[in-house]
Formats: sequence, C-alpha cells, structure tokens
Amino acid sequence: MPNKIFDKVAGNGLISRRHLLEISAAGLGMAASNSVLGADSGFNLEIPGWSRTPGPGPSAYGNRSPHTENFQRMTGFQNPTYPGGGSSRSPLQYLQGTITPNSLHFERHHAGVPDIDPVGHKLVINGLVRQPLAFSYEDLLKYQMVSRVYFLECSGNSGALLRGETGGTAQSLHGLVSCAEWTGIPLSTLLDEAGVLPDARWIAAVGADAASMGRSVPIEKALDDVMVALYQNGEPVRPGQGYPMRLFCPGWEGNISVKWLTQIKLTRGPAQFRDETSKYTDTLPDRSSYQFTFPMGTKSLITSPSGEMTLNQSGIYQVTGIAWSGSGRINRVEVSADGGQTWADADIQGHQLEKAVTRFTIPWEWNGGTAILQSRATDSRGNVQPTRSAVIADRGTVSTYHNHCIQSWEVNNTGEVINIYV
Amino acid sequence: MPNKIFDKVAGNGLISRRHLLEISAAGLGMAASNSVLGADSGFNLEIPGWSRTPGPGPSAYGNRSPHTENFQRMTGFQNPTYPGGGSSRSPLQYLQGTITPNSLHFERHHAGVPDIDPVGHKLVINGLVRQPLAFSYEDLLKYQMVSRVYFLECSGNSGALLRGETGGTAQSLHGLVSCAEWTGIPLSTLLDEAGVLPDARWIAAVGADAASMGRSVPIEKALDDVMVALYQNGEPVRPGQGYPMRLFCPGWEGNISVKWLTQIKLTRGPAQFRDETSKYTDTLPDRSSYQFTFPMGTKSLITSPSGEMTLNQSGIYQVTGIAWSGSGRINRVEVSADGGQTWADADIQGHQLEKAVTRFTIPWEWNGGTAILQSRATDSRGNVQPTRSAVIADRGTVSTYHNHCIQSWEVNNTGEVINIYV
Repeated sequence: MPNKIFDKVAGNGLISRRHLLEISAAGLGMAASNSVLGADSGFNLEIPGWSRTPGPGPSAYGNRSPHTENFQRMTGFQNPTYPGGGSSRSPLQYLQGTITPNSLHFERHHAGVPDIDPVGHKLVINGLVRQPLAFSYEDLLKYQMVSRVYFLECSGNSGALLRGETGGTAQSLHGLVSCAEWTGIPLSTLLDEAGVLPDARWIAAVGADAASMGRSVPIEKALDDVMVALYQNGEPVRPGQGYPMRLFCPGWEGNISVKWLTQIKLTRGPAQFRDETSKYTDTLPDRSSYQFTFPMGTKSLITSPSGEMTLNQSGIYQVTGIAWSGSGRINRVEVSADGGQTWADADIQGHQLEKAVTRFTIPWEWNGGTAILQSRATDSRGNVQPTRSAVIADRGTVSTYHNHCIQSWEVNNTGEVINIYV
Repeated sequence: MPNKIFDKVAGNGLISRRHLLEISAAGLGMAASNSVLGADSGFNLEIPGWSRTPGPGPSAYGNRSPHTENFQRMTGFQNPTYPGGGSSRSPLQYLQGTITPNSLHFERHHAGVPDIDPVGHKLVINGLVRQPLAFSYEDLLKYQMVSRVYFLECSGNSGALLRGETGGTAQSLHGLVSCAEWTGIPLSTLLDEAGVLPDARWIAAVGADAASMGRSVPIEKALDDVMVALYQNGEPVRPGQGYPMRLFCPGWEGNISVKWLTQIKLTRGPAQFRDETSKYTDTLPDRSSYQFTFPMGTKSLITSPSGEMTLNQSGIYQVTGIAWSGSGRINRVEVSADGGQTWADADIQGHQLEKAVTRFTIPWEWNGGTAILQSRATDSRGNVQPTRSAVIADRGTVSTYHNHCIQSWEVNNTGEVINIYV
C-alpha cells in the first residue's frame, strides 16, 4: 500500500485521528482451507491449539493471564530499622483506562500492613464534640454511603525529577498515583452524630497501624467531601489500603487519607503529627517551609511511549497517558512531540470526573528520528501544569514533595525512550 | 438516649437521610488509660495487638483480607458432556459501589477458558469489505482507544424468578451482572480501515474458544459504540473475560460481547449461529419467538438486605442496591418496604453513567415485623422496571431470558430475608 501523508496537528509527527492507520496486514487472496480463519478470510491462518480443545470451566475467583503476570508493583528499599516502611509503585506503563486494579494500586506504609480483624476494630470520634462516639465496623455498614471515582497520589510522587535522577520508567518515577472507585460514609454524617462544637477547627485522624500514623485536616474539608472509605472498586478496602476502613480526602496528598482509621479527634488546631512537621512539608531554598500543601497539583504524564520502552520501527503509535488535578476536573491535555515547541490537543479517552484520573490519547507518526514527548494538563479552574524549570524557580529543590512538572521522554533514533531534562 | 421518631418518606419504615441514626455506642465518661483510644476518648478501649507490632511491608501484588476471602463467585453445575461450559455468579450482596473487581466479575463460558498466547492470536476482518485485514495484538495496541464504564449482563440472569424458584440470594438469582471500565478500540475505526461495502448490514463475530462462539450484530450498532476491548478496569482483559480481546457491545445481552474475538465477518444478514437460534431467543406461549432481543431491560435489585441474610435486631438499616439499563442512564430508583403499596425515591449514591450500574441507597427503620422490600428503576428514556406479573402477562414463562422484573425480598418477623413472589 502506498505511504500516506497524514494531516499534522503539531510538529514532529502528531497527527489527526481522522486518518486510517493501516497498521494491519492486508489479506492477499483466497486460500484452500475452509476454516474460520482460512479460505474465506483470505489469510489461511492456522487454527491454534486453544481453539481445538475445551479449556477449564468457571472458577470462584478469577486470575490474570500468565502473559500479564509480569505486571507487578515495584517495591522500594526496605530499611531494617524502619520495619514495614516503604512503598510499592503502580506499573503505569502497562495499565490503560483510568481505574487501577486493587492488586496494583500504589501503597505507602509507615509500619507495614496490620492484619486487622474488623470485629475488634473501633472508630472513635471524640475531642471537641457534644458526645464522643465509638463505631464498630458493623455499625458503620448501616449508614448511607457515597461512591466516587478519585485519584490518590503520594506527595512524594515524581520527586525524582526534582532530584534530577537519570533514567527511570513511568512506574519508577511516577508510580505513586492510582485511581479507584471509593465507597464510604461521608465524614460529615458521623461528625453530625457526634455534634461538632464551635471551637473545633481541625480533625486529627489516627490509624491503627504500629506507627499510629496521624494527620490533621481542617474542619472545612472534613465537612466537605471527606469520607470514611469501606470499599474500593466494589470490594472491601484491602489490608494494604486500610482494611477495614480508611479516611479518604479527595484530591489531597495521599498521606492524609489515613489508613486503618481508628480515631478522629476534633481539635482547635493541627495536632502537629510527625508526618505534618518533619515529613510532607515543603522546605524552600531559604529554609522556611510551607507546612501544609493539601491539594495535589494539576498534572499529566505520558505512560506510553515512556521510559525504558523501545519502539521497534518507525510508523504510527498511540501516545497515551493520564492526567489529574486535586482542584477539579481535567479540561484539556496537550501533547508535544518536539519538546514543547508546538502542542496539539489530545483526545480525552473516557469519563472526565472531578478529582479523578482522566485518560488522554493522540496518534503520532514516529519518523525514526529523535523526538521529545511531553504532555501538559489544564484543569477546570484554569490551572496549567508547569515546566520543571518553573517548579524549580518557584520553590527550589530542597524539598521534592508535591512536584507536578511536565515529564519529558526522549525517543532517540534507535527507538529507546529515556527520561530527560529539557 | 430516647427513641427517635423519624420522618417517614414511605410506608413500613423508609425514612429520610436527614436524620441522625445514633447507631454507635456513646462514650460514658473519662477512664484511666492515656492511650489513643483510652482516657481522652471516653471509651478506654484496649489497644489491639495489630497496633503494637509492625506488619509486613509493601508487596508486588496486593491481596484481600483473610476476613473477606469468603466473598467468592458461585460456580454452576458442570456438565461432563459439555466440558468447560457453565457460569460463575458475582457475590452481589458483598459488593458496594458500582465497579466489580475483575476477580469477581461474572463469567459464562461455552467451552471453557482458552489459554491464549497473544503472539499467536489474530483478529481478522473480512467478508463484505474492500480489503480483508488481519490484526495482531501488537498492531491493535497502536490504535487510539476509548474507556467507558459499562455494565454487562447475561440474558439468562434472573431467569429463576420466571421459573418461580424458591429461596436464593442476590448472587444465586441475579449474579450474572457486573460492571467495569472497559478500554478498547472503537470497532468503527477498524471497520473503516477494512472499508465496509454497501451490502454489509450485519457483522458475524467469532471467538477463538473451542466452541467457536459466534454472534451477529447489526451494522448500525457495530458502527456506534461497540469496541474491541483490550483492558478491563485498567489491566489487560483476563482469560475468563476474553484475553487478549473481546467484542464489547454496551447495554446489550452479554453473550453478544464475544470473548477471545478472532474474526469479524461483514455479511448481508445474521449468521444464524447456535446462540442466536436455539439459545438466547425469547419463545412466547404460542411458541413463536423473538429471535433478537438485544438491549437489556431497565432493572434494579436490592443487594442488602437480600436473600438469606438475617437482620439481628430491629432498628436502622441501609437499603442499597444496583440499577442499570441497556437503553441509557438510570434517572431514578424508588424503594418500597410494603410490597409496592408505597414508594420513596432512593438516593443515587455515585456517578450516573450511560449503560453502567448505578448504586442507590435509602435508610430504613425495621420495626421487627414483616416487610417486603422492592426497588423499581426508571431510565433516561422513561422506561420503568415492570413487576413480575407484568413480565409474565407480556411474554409468559416458556423462555426465561431477558427477565428484568422487580425482585421482592421479604423480611420476616425473625429477621430472615427471603425471595418471595407477590
């Protein structure tokens, strides 16, 4: 078939999806076999073994194909003086759509994963309330719930880019973000039951893990969209995500969505927990710090092609990735193939939900030369994802939390995809 | 605390969610311990063992809590003359929200689950096309994809109600429905590449399983929202769902979303496959049949309380369930606690997406007496879920496919929940 000249929508090969891609093999004529894939297809393909013999029947609990079992989370260095601490990163480059399967959702623990029997677990609401209350798991199941798809991102995600680390994959650099449907009880319902006293301006939420991980949340957020989450993607929240219950603060840094939630204390001010003083604060070059940076920035990332992939031949590729914002909905994602000189609007591939991952896609014709792929998100409040230079100019690199800069992937002339800084 | 008189929104205990439920234990004063859950909580709860010792650290692939591992699919009778055939039903009564985890999504197989190596799998498009085409899995990954949350329901689901079977659970009676985010290539894109000839009015889709399961789809649907699905809830479609690819026909009976898709042939008329002639057709009492009943009906189901559950004490419960329609969005779900004499609007608990499961909820005060719980869905086209009597009057019980009647759960005065017919 003759080569097509595709309508370009931006420099270095970004094209319109109106075009036919002509990636497949064309049938070259009729063949002798009468099989489904033979004569009348024009391909005369062999019938594979799996089409000849019945396979195993229905099962009580489904599994992945052995051909996809290498899609695993990447677990970080385990420090023996800090047992159970560490993180596991989602394999973003192998995922599609917006939902992260629960087994591959990122995790970050401070004292490992407690094995909680829900029968022995309580959620206490106390402090500046009219009436302290203790809820069993069974109690909570009797309340009306809400269900929403939300992203969750660790504020340490993408910090490697501010540290200037070389190499890396979408997973190793950015794998501390995931997205799920969370179902739980609006915290406002439970706070209403306890009766919030006028002096209460914050809540202090504490987990039942051995770290007693605690975080403070302003009362305005606590009464807004925060929930006590009991289910994730339809099933009970898993141990690594806080079973039997976690706080969930939509759009805010992941650490504040306290897992294994066991206490909410209403207070006048923040509790000054370890993870809001020595950790998760943004220290500037002059050594002053922003203590609380709650909403995660407007951000996007190309997941394919991405770091350490190799393109085997020039031609058409699907450029795809994810975008999210802690402040609203993703309105627009632009993609550049020439390192930010020209940009084209990507197609939004699915639902555009508030504080949820949005998937984008745009076709790209790789001509075999060097290209620099970037994406840039804009949210419903008009926030635009900044360049790395802009982030560094704004807050330096003393702290590497809360980085939402544009990622640059270089495709070199051998097809290797590499994390670069431009 | 004194008993509350709740504002009723319909008969037999359906109440407004504006009320405080007062389910939890109230703190009764200060205690001696200084623990998180002790003195300052007013509860003096013992610190559990799991809060005292660090747990295991991050893992490459997450698992469920041992306390939820009994949530399994129910597998049907295996017929030795029909190897690999059968179904597995989702445990609807244990799920929440709208997404079904992939391991618990219902399945229905006709010759078991083939173990397909994607390297050896082809998708052929042929028949009435300008140019037959064969796509490898790698080819397809280069196309732009779409992602949408859709329900999938077997047309045999809920047939037990037309057969008048006694007893049963939400799972055993209605577990052949699930909901997931599906990601794939619009079939229209691939058909455009092949070039649909003017005479082509149907497609015949065939799977690579040993049953060569095939179904015919009118060209209008094929060019509308049908996709070749490669991903489910973010990860590659699993073997039980058609790995490496399946047809997905949103809103239509599940059988037509052909798994292990290997051929799409453009034809003048339907192919008259086994599963659209001897099976999946609706035979009326006069023995004439509707051959093609594609969109699934407007339907809802209370999943809790539901069949074979037991309510241990009178008081407030969350009545919750799922609703869906093959013809659009769910606009409204009503709930009755008195067998359909009075109805109240349930709250919609999450996103209301086109051809997707919608979750509803309403609080209910069980007074300890007999109650009959029902739900009734209305979709965006104004279709209202019918009673069982209306379905039977309309099309009899010779065929039990495509039943979307209202389910009645009786709560008797010992708290047992039973499938009944009213």
